[in-house]
Amino acid sequence: MKFDKELESHYLKGHEKYLRHISVDCVIFGFHQNDLKVLLLKTKYDGRWALPGGFILKNEHIDTAAQRILKERTGLDEIFLEQFYVFGDPDRSTKKINKQFLKNVGLSVTDSWMFERFITIGFYALVDFTKVTPAPDNISDACEWFSIYQLPEMILDHQHIFQEALENLRMQLNFHPVGFNLLGKKFTMPELQKLYETILGKKLDRRNFQRKILATGILKRLDETKKGVAHKAPFYYKFDLRNYKKALEAGMHSFE
Amino acid sequence: MKFDKELESHYLKGHEKYLRHISVDCVIFGFHQNDLKVLLLKTKYDGRWALPGGFILKNEHIDTAAQRILKERTGLDEIFLEQFYVFGDPDRSTKKINKQFLKNVGLSVTDSWMFERFITIGFYALVDFTKVTPAPDNISDACEWFSIYQLPEMILDHQHIFQEALENLRMQLNFHPVGFNLLGKKFTMPELQKLYETILGKKLDRRNFQRKILATGILKRLDETKKGVAHKAPFYYKFDLRNYKKALEAGMHSFE
Repeated sequence: MKFDKELESHYLKGHEKYLRHISVDCVIFGFHQNDLKVLLLKTKYDGRWALPGGFILKNEHIDTAAQRILKERTGLDEIFLEQFYVFGDPDRSTKKINKQFLKNVGLSVTDSWMFERFITIGFYALVDFTKVTPAPDNISDACEWFSIYQLPEMILDHQHIFQEALENLRMQLNFHPVGFNLLGKKFTMPELQKLYETILGKKLDRRNFQRKILATGILKRLDETKKGVAHKAPFYYKFDLRNYKKALEAGMHSFE
Repeated sequence: MKFDKELESHYLKGHEKYLRHISVDCVIFGFHQNDLKVLLLKTKYDGRWALPGGFILKNEHIDTAAQRILKERTGLDEIFLEQFYVFGDPDRSTKKINKQFLKNVGLSVTDSWMFERFITIGFYALVDFTKVTPAPDNISDACEWFSIYQLPEMILDHQHIFQEALENLRMQLNFHPVGFNLLGKKFTMPELQKLYETILGKKLDRRNFQRKILATGILKRLDETKKGVAHKAPFYYKFDLRNYKKALEAGMHSFE
């Protein structure tokens, strides 16, 4: 079978193509309205789920490798994608799981770069999940969105990697308009607050939120209100990218 | 010469001991009173300066490798040390500089794991430079503190790595009491403000700073004022570690 030949070649000769010891794992968060999800793959020979990941070509930038993996799984590119941590515990061995894969598929490989230790570089992305058609990779049966509150059993330390990514995303809310690519060109204050609440996983005080987000100077209020709303029509806002960039350059420290 | 034998062995056989393709570089910031410095090594066979760095033993956690390097260069351990970024550009080749090293020392090595591509994991630390006796490693002539505003010429992309570390340290000031190990058990508000100003490289408004830092809840005012001060005696403060931990667990987001 063609697939098994490919797989065998990956185990026997993959190190001629990729850097040894280094992998990339992507935590792809999907947001839409009041929902925050994460994209997972169902591994063919294990049945459990995994974060989309891959290896780094010998002449490829690590950030490009992450973009490539993201593109292959979601069809999206040029979106908010950020390194957040390197997982470098020597006990996060992939040897056992690789041997199991090979056994299940009936391949006999005694020595492989895939049995060696891997450190993995974690990246996370934030996309609108309604704009994505998830695509499994060649070692997966399925590629699906899961609610971040109802995750299936995952291989290796992928649960831990996911958790770290979530904490980093929440931290980043203070510094970056991460919702920039999720809300459309204009949005109301309640819509932006919903985005923050969904990512943070908790309710925020309406007045505090409005005061703090306006104090950052990264929003611009438009002379236009939302039509067809039962109560007081809320104003539309847009991100003021120039102020945002200025704030970033100045450091955007809350102590200044 | 013993040293040259060691060096040759490192080039020929180092990959049996260390992971290929991965290095660690440490940006060690030294603070004291109104000074912020960085610890650099003068490379033996190049003359330019470098960040303290090294490789990861086959069974060593990457964080342990960084701690080990820090300890070897400064004698300090268990201090604030944080991963901040992975530099993964395929063009950051160390081949040329390694060939030059070998040529200068008169060694002939045609093939080596040291000529392959390396990604490097950046860590930064913040220490009190008066408590450190800098120690050069075996490929360096000198190990010295430099003002962050007067850096010498550095090898490879080390200038860039330093700059990223500085930006990350400044960002972290919002979330972590990074001065915890630098100020002593108790300190005055002006002393804490000086620490922030020195790291940020700019003056801060006294009242704004006090208001914001107290709002974080991580400080506790003591019933004791500083003696022997000409003007109004300032109160002493200490870090409230319990509140700090609570704040971290709750997310410590400025939007809450």
